[in-house]
Amino acid sequence: MPRYALKIEYDGAPFAGWQRQKTAPSVQATVEAALTRLEPDLPAIAAAGRTDAGVHATAQVVHCDMARDWDAFRLSEALNYHLKPAPIAILAAAKVDPGFHARFSALGRHYLYRLQSRRAPLTLDRGQVWRVNHRLDIAAMQTAAADLIGRHDFTTFRSTHCQARSPEKTLDRIDISATEIPHGTEYRFRLSARSFLHNQVRSIVGTLERIGAGNWPVEAMKSALDAKDRTACGPVAPPDGLYLIGVDYQPDPFAAIG
Amino acid sequence: MPRYALKIEYDGAPFAGWQRQKTAPSVQATVEAALTRLEPDLPAIAAAGRTDAGVHATAQVVHCDMARDWDAFRLSEALNYHLKPAPIAILAAAKVDPGFHARFSALGRHYLYRLQSRRAPLTLDRGQVWRVNHRLDIAAMQTAAADLIGRHDFTTFRSTHCQARSPEKTLDRIDISATEIPHGTEYRFRLSARSFLHNQVRSIVGTLERIGAGNWPVEAMKSALDAKDRTACGPVAPPDGLYLIGVDYQPDPFAAIG
Repeated sequence: MPRYALKIEYDGAPFAGWQRQKTAPSVQATVEAALTRLEPDLPAIAAAGRTDAGVHATAQVVHCDMARDWDAFRLSEALNYHLKPAPIAILAAAKVDPGFHARFSALGRHYLYRLQSRRAPLTLDRGQVWRVNHRLDIAAMQTAAADLIGRHDFTTFRSTHCQARSPEKTLDRIDISATEIPHGTEYRFRLSARSFLHNQVRSIVGTLERIGAGNWPVEAMKSALDAKDRTACGPVAPPDGLYLIGVDYQPDPFAAIG
Repeated sequence: MPRYALKIEYDGAPFAGWQRQKTAPSVQATVEAALTRLEPDLPAIAAAGRTDAGVHATAQVVHCDMARDWDAFRLSEALNYHLKPAPIAILAAAKVDPGFHARFSALGRHYLYRLQSRRAPLTLDRGQVWRVNHRLDIAAMQTAAADLIGRHDFTTFRSTHCQARSPEKTLDRIDISATEIPHGTEYRFRLSARSFLHNQVRSIVGTLERIGAGNWPVEAMKSALDAKDRTACGPVAPPDGLYLIGVDYQPDPFAAIG
């Protein structure tokens, strides 16, 4: 049974998240339905990141086992055909080693969070950005974010529904940049780690926003982290601004595709 | 009756265009309905660009006459409140001279056209980009575009429904840039002129795409222009990729707002 890795982009807005659910449309069920159009008896597929409802991906990675020996490019084209009209696209497909596992072989995960500060409501970016009315202090957010780098107990920034065995994670990177947009500013948070806890990125961004707004002091981040207490976290940022933008493997299954 | 200029952003996808119509939702009717919530007897409003169905704006300019003397910022906030949930936002409002006319005072109009070359269907950018499957030759498109700069009879690039008195227009600028996107390339066409004919930008981009794809030779642009014949035009590019991104006035009514 040849195994394939798929790189997938999606607009998370109409979905109840990645994971298959009984009563609501999910990205997983939609991709599996398209695969089933190609081969009826399909084993369940696995993804690198189980994104929540409303969270987007520009480079989710999935693996699937096919009965037939598919040309990888033809597999991606056939899947894109059957995925219509769902806002899900297969960007690339590659045949991989049977030992490859989209979730367990992942060595790093990269998330982007988009936050806009402007008075006017969203139009073209609706559902794809978190908008706040007020100005944000990027230097304060950057200083506070630096306290999170490295290995920590992230209990404060973890959903009470998180199923990870340990709250300890190593945050490798958290960069914040600002770009002027017409009548406002867009802040982009880029976070990288081997793996994240459930709601970790949104909990961190929600806390940074409180600090950027000046409602919480810069030191609040360190206190929140040290508290190891979910109630010390800021409001969880909405899913709209969150994107899974990359997953690292060694070797990169898509290296030959570019 | 104080006059106000409004700078408006909208997602054109759900609208039958700017202009009020009997049977379909338009941007104009939606903005007028919001204004009517503030003052019942409202004269019709005028816009710098009468965008077609599906065409977007990041900086449409409109003027309206109000009975009351509104603080401009409060006017924009009240309108944004009443515009919900339509994907239309007032980015800025300014009181202007009674002689200001959003359409007739405009000295320049700027359009952006977004075209992506990639195999995978659109997800997050759906309705906001024109996607083609094949590669495009940017140098060929740039060479062909240069033939359009200056004053010409643009009959070839004009909708048969165009109501302008003359087909002669002066195209001041047509720049094309390319940016790598994951598994593809995005081409951005920026066109500036004092005014445009109906469908002129989409007709030009559609013709440039045929040249970029290699289906038409670079010289086809000059021949098409010289033909002064609508049937010499390439296929009209879809509205999805088109954005009205700026309108010039002297003085700029929004100068103080930034």
